[in-house]
Amino acid sequence: MSHKHDLSMQPDKKPVVPRSEHEKEKIKNRLKKIEGQIRGLERMVDEDRYCVEILIQIAAVQAALKKVGFSLLERHTKMCVLHSVQSGNGEEMIEELMKVIRHYAK
Amino acid sequence: MSHKHDLSMQPDKKPVVPRSEHEKEKIKNRLKKIEGQIRGLERMVDEDRYCVEILIQIAAVQAALKKVGFSLLERHTKMCVLHSVQSGNGEEMIEELMKVIRHYAK
Amino acid sequence: MSHKHDLSMQPDKKPVVPRSEHEKEKIKNRLKKIEGQIRGLERMVDEDRYCVEILIQIAAVQAALKKVGFSLLERHTKMCVLHSVQSGNGEEMIEELMKVIRHYAK
Amino acid sequence: MSHKHDLSMQPDKKPVVPRSEHEKEKIKNRLKKIEGQIRGLERMVDEDRYCVEILIQIAAVQAALKKVGFSLLERHTKMCVLHSVQSGNGEEMIEELMKVIRHYAK
Repeated sequence: MSHKHDLSMQPDKKPVVPRSEHEKEKIKNRLKKIEGQIRGLERMVDEDRYCVEILIQIAAVQAALKKVGFSLLERHTKMCVLHSVQSGNGEEMIEELMKVIRHYAK
Repeated sequence: MSHKHDLSMQPDKKPVVPRSEHEKEKIKNRLKKIEGQIRGLERMVDEDRYCVEILIQIAAVQAALKKVGFSLLERHTKMCVLHSVQSGNGEEMIEELMKVIRHYAK
Repeated sequence: MSHKHDLSMQPDKKPVVPRSEHEKEKIKNRLKKIEGQIRGLERMVDEDRYCVEILIQIAAVQAALKKVGFSLLERHTKMCVLHSVQSGNGEEMIEELMKVIRHYAK
Repeated sequence: MSHKHDLSMQPDKKPVVPRSEHEKEKIKNRLKKIEGQIRGLERMVDEDRYCVEILIQIAAVQAALKKVGFSLLERHTKMCVLHSVQSGNGEEMIEELMKVIRHYAK
């Protein structure tokens, strides 16, 4: 399997279709909200809050992260993958997409 | 069903078996590490990193959160639930435990 | 770790609190319905049905199985685990319960 | 949103790239094996087998179903979606693909 197909880090790689400033702001705002939720969890531990309350909050953060992940996956598929297939090098992108989905489904 | 059985917020409720300072430190350290990972995600967006790289990192944060959640659930069950059953009011605690698990399994 | 704590097969072990005939019928009916859904999937393949239709049906079967699993887990916890803790040997049962939950959460 | 985009049943729709007889046999064999596992679960209930044993078997069936589902999804994406995009009507197929993935991720 070529190195292009695995999911190792490639820090210089950019989105095939660049994100607009507006898109970037939206994703960052969602992440900042999640960061705040994590700090909220730390406070709950400090305040000796009941286990079940903390667990319910963790489930809320997990749902928020899943949503950000899904919206990135959707944008990647509808923009980057589509564009790559239309430009003729889609097989590799689709191979990679399936790896990401498999990685998530684990 | 009594209000004790639902999963609404009860800010004054404490763990049935109190968490030691050592336990609290351990959980908070794991949460702080996750908070750092979220900030790392924000940086990745700033640096226009490739969608798939960000998705892989989100999956890593999800796995870390799941682990913290599971360890809290395990501690709650082995300490708080067990202790409550042994003290004679376990039915309510087991009812609540199943609600949490159902909430997570959604 | 003792053999009592792992999740290997123990064909002679029975539920701590026996299932009534009514309970057994109910579980078997749900399983028979799922068996029918699987045969429906086989037919869909025979009839060359569209991939997405089959995938939606598979998701339905997965949801049905999850529901049976959850109801068995709930009954096990509320009856067998509770009874074992009340009889004084609950620690082992709770250890085993967490293993099952961890197994499911994988 | 047009009716082509929702996930309602369309019994006359076929795979964009037809399945070979060999492919069909392979999927059916996997489903037949799962059908056998479901019947095994029914027998376990008849034989009063221990709850945890049954739960472990249910988890095995769930894993098997997930695998069949993933392999159908992979084949659909690599064949039907790719082919549709290359033929110029990929946007609809990618829209539908995201709906399926979202449906699974629920």
